[in-house]
Amino acid sequence: MTAASSPPSGTVTTVPAKVAASSNAVEKIRRRESSRGRVIDLIRSNGPISRVELAERTGLTQATISTLVRALLTEDIVVESGRGVSTGGKPRMFLELNPAARLGVGVHLGQDYITYIIADLAGRVVARRRVDGPGDTSPLTVVSRMTRDIEALIEGSGVDRTGIVGMGIATPGPLDRTTGTVRNAPSLAAWNDFPIRRALASTTGLHCEFDNDATAAAIGEYWLGATEGYANYASVYMGSGIGSGIVMDGTIYQGVSSNVGEIGHVTVDARGLPCPCGNIGCLELYASPRVVVTRAAEAVDRGELTIPLTGVVSEDFAAVGVAAAAGDPVAVHLVRESAEYVASAVISMVNLLDLQLVVLAGSAFSTSGSFYVEIISEALSRRAMARAIHPVEVRLSVNGNDAAALGAATLVLQDRLSPRTLRSVSFA
Amino acid sequence: MTAASSPPSGTVTTVPAKVAASSNAVEKIRRRESSRGRVIDLIRSNGPISRVELAERTGLTQATISTLVRALLTEDIVVESGRGVSTGGKPRMFLELNPAARLGVGVHLGQDYITYIIADLAGRVVARRRVDGPGDTSPLTVVSRMTRDIEALIEGSGVDRTGIVGMGIATPGPLDRTTGTVRNAPSLAAWNDFPIRRALASTTGLHCEFDNDATAAAIGEYWLGATEGYANYASVYMGSGIGSGIVMDGTIYQGVSSNVGEIGHVTVDARGLPCPCGNIGCLELYASPRVVVTRAAEAVDRGELTIPLTGVVSEDFAAVGVAAAAGDPVAVHLVRESAEYVASAVISMVNLLDLQLVVLAGSAFSTSGSFYVEIISEALSRRAMARAIHPVEVRLSVNGNDAAALGAATLVLQDRLSPRTLRSVSFA
Repeated sequence: MTAASSPPSGTVTTVPAKVAASSNAVEKIRRRESSRGRVIDLIRSNGPISRVELAERTGLTQATISTLVRALLTEDIVVESGRGVSTGGKPRMFLELNPAARLGVGVHLGQDYITYIIADLAGRVVARRRVDGPGDTSPLTVVSRMTRDIEALIEGSGVDRTGIVGMGIATPGPLDRTTGTVRNAPSLAAWNDFPIRRALASTTGLHCEFDNDATAAAIGEYWLGATEGYANYASVYMGSGIGSGIVMDGTIYQGVSSNVGEIGHVTVDARGLPCPCGNIGCLELYASPRVVVTRAAEAVDRGELTIPLTGVVSEDFAAVGVAAAAGDPVAVHLVRESAEYVASAVISMVNLLDLQLVVLAGSAFSTSGSFYVEIISEALSRRAMARAIHPVEVRLSVNGNDAAALGAATLVLQDRLSPRTLRSVSFA
Repeated sequence: MTAASSPPSGTVTTVPAKVAASSNAVEKIRRRESSRGRVIDLIRSNGPISRVELAERTGLTQATISTLVRALLTEDIVVESGRGVSTGGKPRMFLELNPAARLGVGVHLGQDYITYIIADLAGRVVARRRVDGPGDTSPLTVVSRMTRDIEALIEGSGVDRTGIVGMGIATPGPLDRTTGTVRNAPSLAAWNDFPIRRALASTTGLHCEFDNDATAAAIGEYWLGATEGYANYASVYMGSGIGSGIVMDGTIYQGVSSNVGEIGHVTVDARGLPCPCGNIGCLELYASPRVVVTRAAEAVDRGELTIPLTGVVSEDFAAVGVAAAAGDPVAVHLVRESAEYVASAVISMVNLLDLQLVVLAGSAFSTSGSFYVEIISEALSRRAMARAIHPVEVRLSVNGNDAAALGAATLVLQDRLSPRTLRSVSFA
């Protein structure tokens, strides 16, 4: 082909000098802007750490690191600790996060339980309280009760109130993040259109962030450094229902209206049962803790299974998990069946999104998580489209039962301290 | 709650002056950087347009617009045309794209056909050629034939060779974009691990971009302005198989390895048939043109349907579509059944990704597209999780049969002219 000798693209790759210059400037400033969040993240996950090492790990200049660290010291977010070994010159000071300098309150309003947490900058739980779910009580009454519970938790914990940067609220979806309301969530029917974020911000006086529990759990994993090195991953959050939080190319994906990751309402049988959500053959109808518990109760009635049943879905699901872990064949069958359906939906998600990692979070995985990890891993290794190109890892959340509430607390810490690191950035 | 009188978050919202200043600077420079792409996009979709209007629509200053436009005029990408009505002062010059200034070659290597296109900056097809698919011929032989076909197309079209910025190659997935190879694509079995991008770049001398056909189609829609106003959408591309391209928060989503959007391998029946891909109950097994055509052939054998069958999937699928459009009840049933399965998988995708728009692209929709639009729209309006919060629109591609090849051409135009507008940007 004659064009080969003089590549026609040559004329176009010549970028005008002005654009090239501004491009470089952008790269520099972009780095500087996100560097605050990255420095905080590095000190959190690798402290005590020296300024020199921070410069090495971030690729930033010593001068930039010094400026950033000075601000963080002034704000008390970082403290100097000990001295490194002197190598002849001035001995190195190490930097550590001052975890107690900033605190976030996290609330998970689930169907069975309301969980309150106070977490520090290291993602450590400083105080925790769990109470019964809202049941049929009116949202206004529940909000007053929650306000008292939050006040009591702060009071009882003895933390410095001025360090609290705000509160994150996590609920099952769907929700409207712009108005701060739950919208038609099957598990919180009474809360439809109730302005939960505004109500709690007003009664507690705290700045409030609001998101669905699975997204909160995905941010919580990141905050604790459990997803380091992964840019494309999802959390699968299983409480009474099943949801998912999605991180794409390093940013939490929010979609049009933050109603992303509804993996519980991914179809696993297009000719299957009608779901209360309006769709057909949804995963939740075949795999949710509620369904497993219903089947377990039937097996108990038939005398095939002996476990204590309380009527609270999460407790009964835990009982099935305990029996399965002990090798009871009926319990094993119930858990495996659920895990196989979850695996099918996870494969659909992985095939759509080309993910590297799936983190399983939520109370449902606390007793039977290992079954799910094994079955989902095995299914992905045999059935995912891109399996020949890269593996997809499956892990249990490092946050156990607290994943959503702790995630909610990190939601507000993240938003207040390094908002650009995880949230989506668009060039509109 | 006592904290209400003095919001504890107050101490933290005080952003250090340095950070706030750099934040503002970033916003400005970020705008300037992406402005080149945005100005090109606006001139393409709204030209002839004045500098004043460009400034109004982009929010950029007159000075910035002048600088950008001067560069585009020098590069011949934009030309001045006519004069606006004088309002007393200096009459306004209008700006138009010079569509012929840059051209992209687009190649879609499909199973049934190989399509070649030369497209200009306006997304107009300057030249087109379609030949039979590769069949069992060895990739090396096919690449020589393709090289001759591309040369003949360029030669025959009479375009200015120096205007060709490169070539986009689109194939069905899975693929490895980093190495430029098709990986285990069921419809291109002979091409496994063949370095198609390197081979064609070397034989044609053209800069080559490479992506899957559905992603190319999604970029093509954007390039032609058909998705204006939508930040979160997907293409569903149906050729012989079914794929999908995903745009999230305004950027093409690439995943870990560009193997995104495999909607044809989303499970629609977790207890269903094994798929050659390794998964179970995949959409393609129930809804692909291949399956519809197989069922149609059975109906023809039984004397229930009278249509001409050629053995080429896309042609036979078109024949079923024609019969369905004419009201043949058997053909209508076959097409509706396929559309209902596609609708289920689309709902799964929409529930995971909270999309605003689904664009149906590819040859399969050229005759029976209206059935799919109607059935998928209706299903989304009744079954999507977020339907109470926002609608999800369903549309046929503006690019008809050429969606993948034209998308491939725009892939390289996009990459060379405004790479930041659509491609994903991460703050690593």
